[in-house]
Amino acid sequence: MEGEALSALCTPALVVDVDKVKRNAERMIKRCQNLGVQLRPHMKTHKTLECADIMTGGSRRCIVVSTLAEACFYADHGFDDILYAYSLPFDKVERCAALSERLDLFQVLLDHPHALEQLKKRPLRDGRLWHVWLKLDCGNGRAGVLHSEPEALRLAQAIAETEGVELTGVYAHCGNTYNCRGVERIQAVAQETTDLTLQFMEKLNAVGITCKSSIGSTPSCSHPVKDMAQLSEVHPGNYCFYDMQQSVIGSCSLEDVAVRVLARVIGHCPHRNQLLIDCGWSGLRLLSMTQEHGRVEPISGLLDYSKYPVGSLLTLIPYHSCATAAMHPVYHVHSEGRLLGKWTPTRGW
Amino acid sequence: MEGEALSALCTPALVVDVDKVKRNAERMIKRCQNLGVQLRPHMKTHKTLECADIMTGGSRRCIVVSTLAEACFYADHGFDDILYAYSLPFDKVERCAALSERLDLFQVLLDHPHALEQLKKRPLRDGRLWHVWLKLDCGNGRAGVLHSEPEALRLAQAIAETEGVELTGVYAHCGNTYNCRGVERIQAVAQETTDLTLQFMEKLNAVGITCKSSIGSTPSCSHPVKDMAQLSEVHPGNYCFYDMQQSVIGSCSLEDVAVRVLARVIGHCPHRNQLLIDCGWSGLRLLSMTQEHGRVEPISGLLDYSKYPVGSLLTLIPYHSCATAAMHPVYHVHSEGRLLGKWTPTRGW
Repeated sequence: MEGEALSALCTPALVVDVDKVKRNAERMIKRCQNLGVQLRPHMKTHKTLECADIMTGGSRRCIVVSTLAEACFYADHGFDDILYAYSLPFDKVERCAALSERLDLFQVLLDHPHALEQLKKRPLRDGRLWHVWLKLDCGNGRAGVLHSEPEALRLAQAIAETEGVELTGVYAHCGNTYNCRGVERIQAVAQETTDLTLQFMEKLNAVGITCKSSIGSTPSCSHPVKDMAQLSEVHPGNYCFYDMQQSVIGSCSLEDVAVRVLARVIGHCPHRNQLLIDCGWSGLRLLSMTQEHGRVEPISGLLDYSKYPVGSLLTLIPYHSCATAAMHPVYHVHSEGRLLGKWTPTRGW
Repeated sequence: MEGEALSALCTPALVVDVDKVKRNAERMIKRCQNLGVQLRPHMKTHKTLECADIMTGGSRRCIVVSTLAEACFYADHGFDDILYAYSLPFDKVERCAALSERLDLFQVLLDHPHALEQLKKRPLRDGRLWHVWLKLDCGNGRAGVLHSEPEALRLAQAIAETEGVELTGVYAHCGNTYNCRGVERIQAVAQETTDLTLQFMEKLNAVGITCKSSIGSTPSCSHPVKDMAQLSEVHPGNYCFYDMQQSVIGSCSLEDVAVRVLARVIGHCPHRNQLLIDCGWSGLRLLSMTQEHGRVEPISGLLDYSKYPVGSLLTLIPYHSCATAAMHPVYHVHSEGRLLGKWTPTRGW
C-alpha cells in the first residue's frame, strides 16, 4: 500500500499525518527548551514506537506511560528512563521490581502509605533504589493526595526516609484544564497547579527534602505560564495527535490535528435525513454510534444525498484522539495523503 | 495460571464464567429448537473461536459476523455458512468475493441498489452465486430499506432477477427492543418486527419470490413470540455473555450475566467520598471513567473505606458487554472461580 492514496484503505481506518505529528512534537520540544524545563512526553495517546521516537527527538529516553504493558513494550525496544505514572497497583509490584532491576531508570508513582508498604516488602536487588514520585492532587480531582492535606507532606517524608526508596519527585496532572475554554482559562489552571506544586516543594524544602517536580496536560503545556520554568519537568501527551476537543479547549487549531478516521457511506436514510457510515464507537462527533454503525446528520437543512453516494469516503476529526486510537489495532501513516506505512500500538495493561 | 483463583489475575481483567456461557447458549439452542427456527448466532459480542464453538454446539456452521475481520478469522479456523450481516461496504467487495469463492457458503447483505451494482461488476468464478440477504428496516431505524417503501420490494426483485446473484433471505434487526423495559414490551416489538417481516415475505410470494427470513436481537430471542416460528432463522448474539443492560431490559436475570470486569482499588478519596479503581473506559456503571481510571461512589451515605483497602479486588458487571469486551485484548475464562485459560478475540475490520 506504500505510496498509494488514502482512498486505497479499507475503512474504518485511523490515519496519521506524520508531518503534523512531527510539527506538533517539535513545537513542544522547542517550547520546553525555551522554558528551560525537561519534557517527559506521555505515551498513552498513541502507544507506538514510531511516535515515541518522534516525541523524544530520537533519544528513546525520558517518557511517561499509563500502563505497565506500555512500560514493558518500550523497555523491550530500548527505551529507558521510564516513569509509570499510575498509582502503584499492588498486583503489579513484582513486574515493577523486575523493570526497576533491568532498566537504568524505571520510576513508579504512589499516593497512599499502603503503596509504600508494598515497596518496602519487595526490596530491589544489587542495592538498587525504588525511584518514587508522589502523586499530588492540585485540584484535578482524580488520583493523588490532596495538596492541602497534612498527610501529603507526611507521605513525602515517609518516602524520603524509607530505606531502599528514593523520593524522585512530585507529580501533578492538571487534567482540570480539560474543562477550560480559551487560553486565558487554561493558563489560570496552569498557574494554579504550578503555584500549588511549588508551594508544596517549599514545604518539602523546609523539612530538608529536595526532589524534582512535574506538572502536565496538553492544554497547559501548549500554553505554558512563565512560572512553569521553576518546575523540573512537564509531561503532556495528547499533543502529538491533538483532536477536536483540544481545539475546542484552545490548546491547538484544527489544522494542528494530526489524526482522522476515514469512513465510508454505507447507507442513505432519507426518511430520517441521515447517512449511515461504517465506523462505530470511536469517540467521534456524530449523532450516534453503535458497534459498527455511525449515524451522520447535517447541522441544518436537508441532506443532499447526491453529494454523498453510498461508498463515498468521509474524513472525520476525532473528538478525543486517545479514545479513538484505542479502538484501532493499527494506524495508517501518510505524508500529504500518500501512505508511508503502519504504526502498531501496544494494548492491554 | 490455570487452576488458580481469579485473585491471581492482574487487573483490569475481563473474566468469563464458562458455565454461564454454556447455560446461556444451551437455553438459546433449546428455545430455537422448540420454536422450530434455525439459530444463527451472532459473533460480534465475543469474537472468539471458543465461544463460537459453544454457541454453534460445536458445528462451526451457521453464524453471523459484523466485520470482515471476523469472517476471515472464522473462515481461517474451519467455520462455514457465514453471513456477513453488514450493509455491503464497497471497499471490501473483492475480499467478500474471495470468501464466496473459498467457502461452501458465504453470504452478504445489502440495502441499496448501488451495492447490487457492485456485485454485478464482480461476478464469482466457477459459476458460483453471490448469496445475498436484503436488509429490511422494520422500525429499528439504523440500516436497511424501510419495509413500507416500495423500493424495498423493487430491490428484492432486482436481487432475485440478477444473474450470478441469489436472493437468499430477508434480514431484520430488531435493535429497538433495547429501548424496552420488561418482557411484555420486548414481545410487542418482537411481534411487530415479525409481522412486518412476514408481511414483506407475502409481498415477495405474490411476485413469485421465495427466500429465507430472519430477525434477531438478544431481547426478542430471549423471549420469542409464537409467530417467530414462521421465520426461517433468528440471529441473536449478546446472550452468550448478557450484561447489566440486558437485565434492565428484562432479557435475562443478573445471575445469567457471564462476564465481569475485575478491578482493584488504587486510591481512597475521602474528600470526594470516592474510591479510585484501575479500570477506565469499559462501559461500566461507574460515576465516571477516564483512560485508565474509574471513579466509584456509594449509592448513598459515606463510603466505609476500611471495607475497601487500597489493593482490594472489586467485581464489576459490565453495562454493555459488547463494548466492554472490545476494550480487552484477552478474556480470562473460569469455572466456579478457578481459571481455565484464555480466549483471544479478533479485532479490526
